[in-house]
Amino acid sequence: MRAARYYDRGDIRIEDITEPEVVPGTVGIDVAWCGICGTDLHEYAEGPIFIPPAGHPQPISKESAPITLGHEMSGVVYAVGAGLDDIAVGDHVVVEPYILHDDVDTGPDSHDYHLSEDMNFIGLGGCGGGLGEKITVKRRWVHKISSNIPLDQAALIEPLSVGYHAVERSGAASGATALITGAGPIGLLTAAVCKAKGITTIISEPSSLRRNKAVEAGVGDHIVDPVADDVVARVRDINGGRGADVGFECTSVQPALDTLLDALKPTGVLVVVSIWSHPGSVDMQKLVLKEIDMRGTIAYVNSHPATIELVEQGKVDLAPFITGRIGLDHLIDAGFDTLINRNETAVKILVSPSGAGL
Amino acid sequence: MRAARYYDRGDIRIEDITEPEVVPGTVGIDVAWCGICGTDLHEYAEGPIFIPPAGHPQPISKESAPITLGHEMSGVVYAVGAGLDDIAVGDHVVVEPYILHDDVDTGPDSHDYHLSEDMNFIGLGGCGGGLGEKITVKRRWVHKISSNIPLDQAALIEPLSVGYHAVERSGAASGATALITGAGPIGLLTAAVCKAKGITTIISEPSSLRRNKAVEAGVGDHIVDPVADDVVARVRDINGGRGADVGFECTSVQPALDTLLDALKPTGVLVVVSIWSHPGSVDMQKLVLKEIDMRGTIAYVNSHPATIELVEQGKVDLAPFITGRIGLDHLIDAGFDTLINRNETAVKILVSPSGAGL
Repeated sequence: MRAARYYDRGDIRIEDITEPEVVPGTVGIDVAWCGICGTDLHEYAEGPIFIPPAGHPQPISKESAPITLGHEMSGVVYAVGAGLDDIAVGDHVVVEPYILHDDVDTGPDSHDYHLSEDMNFIGLGGCGGGLGEKITVKRRWVHKISSNIPLDQAALIEPLSVGYHAVERSGAASGATALITGAGPIGLLTAAVCKAKGITTIISEPSSLRRNKAVEAGVGDHIVDPVADDVVARVRDINGGRGADVGFECTSVQPALDTLLDALKPTGVLVVVSIWSHPGSVDMQKLVLKEIDMRGTIAYVNSHPATIELVEQGKVDLAPFITGRIGLDHLIDAGFDTLINRNETAVKILVSPSGAGL
Repeated sequence: MRAARYYDRGDIRIEDITEPEVVPGTVGIDVAWCGICGTDLHEYAEGPIFIPPAGHPQPISKESAPITLGHEMSGVVYAVGAGLDDIAVGDHVVVEPYILHDDVDTGPDSHDYHLSEDMNFIGLGGCGGGLGEKITVKRRWVHKISSNIPLDQAALIEPLSVGYHAVERSGAASGATALITGAGPIGLLTAAVCKAKGITTIISEPSSLRRNKAVEAGVGDHIVDPVADDVVARVRDINGGRGADVGFECTSVQPALDTLLDALKPTGVLVVVSIWSHPGSVDMQKLVLKEIDMRGTIAYVNSHPATIELVEQGKVDLAPFITGRIGLDHLIDAGFDTLINRNETAVKILVSPSGAGL
């Protein structure tokens, strides 16, 4: 079968590799679509980061580069490993792409398996990837979805779960007002979750192209330009004179963090969703005198079932976020390079590894 | 009556002033003891900060300098204003020293009245102060205490409430492990609350004099020197290989913040208790990849009743924290100057405004 394999920074190759074996306890999935994630771009341009370099096997998967890429995938079950009776050939599924030690509690009440030692992701740390035609995945990480969800949209359930978990971390409920800094893919998907939960959203984004994308996607009750507008004043106007209840930092730039600390109400919650490659400067007086909670969030933990439910109920429409569909042969030119060079208009580019979806 | 009045930075005068009038709804208190707080020292050395300068009246009290100092007070009721029937002459009391707008909800379920607009403190923003012989205080802010609590110790209930609220903000419960950076007054009192609640405490403090003080005060299950010891490793040793559940930053220095981010477990809570006069540098990657909650805390909000209960039940012994007792005449030389110049051995110096306690 064909797969995109990461060898090293700037070196991703489309190769023919052996199909994975469907061993007991695993599910064989024909990948329908796999999204390209910002993390994949970082690995390509600056990595390896999560990917274990050649000769340095990942402690759990025991694999190292070359590894098959792709962790935002949807597909159809083509084989079921021995010992499984709650999933069947033909089921539509998405993958929660974790690589964890066997002794980690991944039960439904766990709120921290994603923070466990040596955690990595399928499609980065080994175990196959969604940028291959087939993959086998442990039953625990395979989530069935309704066949009513188009499989292309289903590939966005993984990044939507990131937004879902961020909103969970904020503690915000229906009726709250959220300020989201940044209308990149994660900012937009976080806004989509907020909308689905009845949270009023204000998106602050300096790029007019990205602001337009938010309008097209139908997310963001108010979309403001932090260069032209006084975001703090706008938030107060919108929220009856009060600051925002929660904020989502989705840019990793300092002015956004400063704005959020100013724009939140006392007791407000600031969720840091973006990955910062540099330290943030935090006005500790504001944190203290307003009793702000600044909370990190990463990936998802037991978030997929509720995220899938939002999509099945039609509360989130993922179609507007898909801005391209390509085959493996165009992964670099029409995928990675487009996302790196035209990142203001491209949101999510989906890859059909077999080409069947094109 | 005699009172210590703040005129300006470096200018505090002991003067004879008119006794306050016990108007309806207020309680007249003969002040027994009043502690000198770090905030008072900041006002003296660097202020005015909270204190409204002459000609700039505080929006609620309408007062400006000179104002009577002192907000950590205990005393005995000598008069009860009209309309009050739940408090009597002779009752022992402490004051929760808030100055708030009349329309702020200060009910028992409020968790944010202390963050309301223009908030200030009795003894800083006007309304009399504990460094005067008598004070009248609105009934809402007067808390009755058992006459079994010595009045000198009772004067420490106000700063103990700061520690109580910090522990509340952490969400920590019995069985948790806390790392406290800094063994100044607030670090020690936070440790005392942790001990009362069954939370294991590790105190990190570079000053040997302050470490000794923690030992003498009987707080801190483990007391470590961050210069000589590897605090992160010590925390793991103590906590069965895991990081601390919660941390309390009570120093306002950068290395303490860095240590806490390293020493906390994933999903750990970092409560910032100290007032920073400069921005903090926060390793956002750690905040995100460990899903740390960094929470500001300031003063107290509906925290006095539970704090008083801890003292009444004997779960906190405040006696060891009293390191001096003086009269008003020695407020500057034996009070402020001692605390500023010998702040490694002096914890809490109490003032008897009338001299009756000496």
